[in-house]
Amino acid sequence: MNYRDINIEYNSFSEQHKKPFGAICTGQEIDFFIRVEDAKDPEITLVIEREGHGEQHLKMTSTGSGVYHSNYCAHESGLCFYFFIISYTDYDYRRTIYVGSPGHGIGGEQVIKENRWDIIPYQITMHNYVEPSPSWYKDAIFYQIFVDRFYNGNEDQKINNPKKNSFLYATWDDSPMYIKDNLNNILRWDFFGGNLLGVIRKLDYLHELGIGGIYLNPIFKSRSNHKYDTGDYLVIDEMFGNEEIFRMLISEADKRGIKIVLDGVFNHVGADSRYFNAFGSYPELGGAESKDSKYYPWFNFFNFPNDYESWWGVKDLPNVNENEPSYRNFIVGKDGVIEKWTRMGIGGWRLDVADEMPDDFIREIRTAMEAVSENPVLIGEVWEDASNKIAYGQRRRYLLGDEIHATMNYPFKDGVISFINGTSRARDLYTRFMSLKENYPREAFYSALNNLGTHDTRRIFTEIPDFDKLYIAIGMLFTFPGVPCIYYGDEAGMKGETDPYNRGPYPWGKEKTQITGAYSEMIRLRKTSNAFSKGDFIPFYQENVFGYLRLYENDCYLVAVNRDPEEFRLVINDVIGLEAVPEEFRKCLADEYPLSRASFSCMNISKK
Amino acid sequence: MNYRDINIEYNSFSEQHKKPFGAICTGQEIDFFIRVEDAKDPEITLVIEREGHGEQHLKMTSTGSGVYHSNYCAHESGLCFYFFIISYTDYDYRRTIYVGSPGHGIGGEQVIKENRWDIIPYQITMHNYVEPSPSWYKDAIFYQIFVDRFYNGNEDQKINNPKKNSFLYATWDDSPMYIKDNLNNILRWDFFGGNLLGVIRKLDYLHELGIGGIYLNPIFKSRSNHKYDTGDYLVIDEMFGNEEIFRMLISEADKRGIKIVLDGVFNHVGADSRYFNAFGSYPELGGAESKDSKYYPWFNFFNFPNDYESWWGVKDLPNVNENEPSYRNFIVGKDGVIEKWTRMGIGGWRLDVADEMPDDFIREIRTAMEAVSENPVLIGEVWEDASNKIAYGQRRRYLLGDEIHATMNYPFKDGVISFINGTSRARDLYTRFMSLKENYPREAFYSALNNLGTHDTRRIFTEIPDFDKLYIAIGMLFTFPGVPCIYYGDEAGMKGETDPYNRGPYPWGKEKTQITGAYSEMIRLRKTSNAFSKGDFIPFYQENVFGYLRLYENDCYLVAVNRDPEEFRLVINDVIGLEAVPEEFRKCLADEYPLSRASFSCMNISKK
Repeated sequence: MNYRDINIEYNSFSEQHKKPFGAICTGQEIDFFIRVEDAKDPEITLVIEREGHGEQHLKMTSTGSGVYHSNYCAHESGLCFYFFIISYTDYDYRRTIYVGSPGHGIGGEQVIKENRWDIIPYQITMHNYVEPSPSWYKDAIFYQIFVDRFYNGNEDQKINNPKKNSFLYATWDDSPMYIKDNLNNILRWDFFGGNLLGVIRKLDYLHELGIGGIYLNPIFKSRSNHKYDTGDYLVIDEMFGNEEIFRMLISEADKRGIKIVLDGVFNHVGADSRYFNAFGSYPELGGAESKDSKYYPWFNFFNFPNDYESWWGVKDLPNVNENEPSYRNFIVGKDGVIEKWTRMGIGGWRLDVADEMPDDFIREIRTAMEAVSENPVLIGEVWEDASNKIAYGQRRRYLLGDEIHATMNYPFKDGVISFINGTSRARDLYTRFMSLKENYPREAFYSALNNLGTHDTRRIFTEIPDFDKLYIAIGMLFTFPGVPCIYYGDEAGMKGETDPYNRGPYPWGKEKTQITGAYSEMIRLRKTSNAFSKGDFIPFYQENVFGYLRLYENDCYLVAVNRDPEEFRLVINDVIGLEAVPEEFRKCLADEYPLSRASFSCMNISKK
Repeated sequence: MNYRDINIEYNSFSEQHKKPFGAICTGQEIDFFIRVEDAKDPEITLVIEREGHGEQHLKMTSTGSGVYHSNYCAHESGLCFYFFIISYTDYDYRRTIYVGSPGHGIGGEQVIKENRWDIIPYQITMHNYVEPSPSWYKDAIFYQIFVDRFYNGNEDQKINNPKKNSFLYATWDDSPMYIKDNLNNILRWDFFGGNLLGVIRKLDYLHELGIGGIYLNPIFKSRSNHKYDTGDYLVIDEMFGNEEIFRMLISEADKRGIKIVLDGVFNHVGADSRYFNAFGSYPELGGAESKDSKYYPWFNFFNFPNDYESWWGVKDLPNVNENEPSYRNFIVGKDGVIEKWTRMGIGGWRLDVADEMPDDFIREIRTAMEAVSENPVLIGEVWEDASNKIAYGQRRRYLLGDEIHATMNYPFKDGVISFINGTSRARDLYTRFMSLKENYPREAFYSALNNLGTHDTRRIFTEIPDFDKLYIAIGMLFTFPGVPCIYYGDEAGMKGETDPYNRGPYPWGKEKTQITGAYSEMIRLRKTSNAFSKGDFIPFYQENVFGYLRLYENDCYLVAVNRDPEEFRLVINDVIGLEAVPEEFRKCLADEYPLSRASFSCMNISKK
């Protein structure tokens, strides 16, 4: 008999097969149920591997009516991977087949293979007790500001302390451009002159928009306009302002219920920094100047002074040796960088390239931050599914409980764009989002900083240049689990290809009001119910329609996206993914929902 | 007998051979004397060609003692070329040899050839009566200003009306740079923000320095920083100021005895101009926009609208059709460009690429200018010996009487630099300068705008980076016939390779005082005697020393340059070139002059 004649059912998304759903707290027991029918003398084995600890083979026992069960409990955090081995008798032979997942980091319905090496195991994230993210954070709507491009707060529009041998744009409306040589080295940095006073002057605007948190791109002294090439961790860049103005920003923001999150760039510094000092710009002896410099051990020289480890080979960004005690102490020690700025009352930090930082360093940053502030948030930059990220051969553990609260949710943006633009199917989006929900610890999933674009991506209105479709993306941003984050100017309808065009000056007075209106509307929607920030997330699809329910207490909203240019009738009975909806909400659903073409619908189906 | 045994002597520099010396006024007779000795039955023929009018063969007659004579008189201006044919008997054969000049446009001692086609004829410039240049001009010391780089006159250093999509240098001290693509197209223009108010505020400085004329690089509205791409001939660029400020500049300069000379760029306009309007920046229909544009006939399209004649193929600078009546009328007609600005009281114009403009156009410019102003000067840009310049197959006539008064004297600069730097000999410099003196109408030679560098060349302190040698060049600039012109900042010791580095911002407050001192000293020297502006110029050389006498009425100065790093004893009897010195001055000369190493000496040997 061919194995295709055997009826096998396993779906990691369903609690009929794996219970509880999703990521597991260490010490919590998991039950696995696999249905195997029409096999002769079947023997089912659950193979489970706690990463780095070898495989365990658990014999599954029949619960009757073709279902086999086993359970498992891990006592340490990390990732587990599992698959099933089914052996059965085929005529007189014993045959073996393997049951695993549809892809790396992807859950859902099983895939069957005859060869063990063809199988991809399912993932389970085992996390420690997760301290909840700060509730101010989870309830907030965030706004990301690239300071140089946001607003110049000086009455006379004068630019603060322009840097020698750099360029200023002649008018605020100019298009940004890089000034590079043929080898792609930056020859001159370019500035529009936005500053912290400009952010202060726009706080009323942000408050009115409904913003509760501002993520500021780096603001410490440095040569560039983006400031990821830190020059001095203890000084506000003089084009942006100074400590007094920064304190004013915090207090003025506080008055409006807005918290400031700083960008912490601790993986590398600028070549032109107090620490490396490649150009002798700073008085103190830098690491590139002498082996006697107290900063010398911060860096990894292959050949002193010109050959050194740098971020992605960019010589302007020498990597720091994050395990060097004097560096660690400078950042996380008493009166160190984290303490200094956190103590001023910021809302927390976003860690640049968190995926390249040692776990214990991140843990120390969190500790240092929490020592001087109540409820600060720590957000990590990560581009992929943060639960199973491998960086430099190391499985990253930052989501597992004592490191970061949240990560930037680029997979959300990628999924939304590819679905709306028709390059992926509703079914793919369903699997993608269910897998995120499954892989992330619940707290992390509900804390993800969702975006439709950042300073590192094309702008959303360039990705989706059609207003009706853009409206869908905006709708999803504000109804999805996690914290929505608006990249400055997206709400004004700014367009922009990748860097530098995605970092254009905010078009004050020239906003595209239709788009601004859509943002306002969706922000209002989000604020009408806790369902959007706290509610259960139950995604579904039917043909080309993707949607989800958000359920919290008595509230329930049905979100449905019809990306196609034709009307569609959503028939609840044909929808896939709603099995888990509690009966009390199920009965609130109509049989059908007519969806207009290229539309985002959000319907309140709460219990009356 | 070999022709080398024949003694032949001809030297166009000497009045013993050609009288009068140098360029000739039409209708004036020239006597030629050639010495031919030791030839048997010699027959000497003067072959003279008035350019474009065929050869005349004049038989020369013996004046006894081996000297042969002929004379010639031309009644129309233009160039004449001449050489000699000598036939003689060699045993029983008649042989023929040819006597001509050492090089094109070069006079001095003869060269003998056996083949007619190897001979280069001597040049004589035949000019009309030359109206003298304005005396204010000839007596002045000029100063060239590239406005964007000179001084920002605004108290707060704000830059007037920055142009969209251009760059402003962040600080006044930045190094200039071009922002170009791989095809060398300018992507963005760059500005420091110097303006006309800045020139006004520095008039006291210029007055104190001894300046009597300012040559301003173009100031009419245009997109670039250099403004050779005129956008509107009737408007002052809004970054530089406006008409009111320009009038103030003229009147404030007048109060200090300083005249303003404008740069007239009439050979081409900017692609981004009211006339061509390639980018639709101007409201009126431009020549590149429609064949119906009134400006369409101004341009020569090979293929409308993208393929058109432009200056040296630079598409940003479409050439104008200077013979189109509507263009001519716009420039030189009633209330045209020339009238408008000249009437405000400027000192005159410098014509950009004068060597590419039709003679009658230049003549009309002069007429238009003189119609509304007293004693304006017209200076032509030309890079070579202006007397024999051929441009586009046409011999240029601008120096011959009714066109320009003066040309920019680049040959002076080139000669000085190559001599001081040791790449040419004292003898070469002597021949070069004697040839200029010979070829130029005297008035033109004494009106030449001498420079040691402009916005189109490397800066003099870069060409000659040694102060002692630079001092020589400065000394020569201020003691040479013609009008010395200082390129802004040369007197402050600015360095600079070619464009853009030669257009750096003036280093106010950071001047190299040694160099500033040298300029002041030489300006004082020039002003001590009319000999420097008006006096006869008698160059000489001995070995590696080059020098000249300047004689005017009772005054005589001996200038001697020892470029070598050793002391040198100038022995007057061994010096070549002093034959023509009148006896009354000759006797004022000492027998010897000790010259220290690498030195410029200027000695007053006036009659007591």
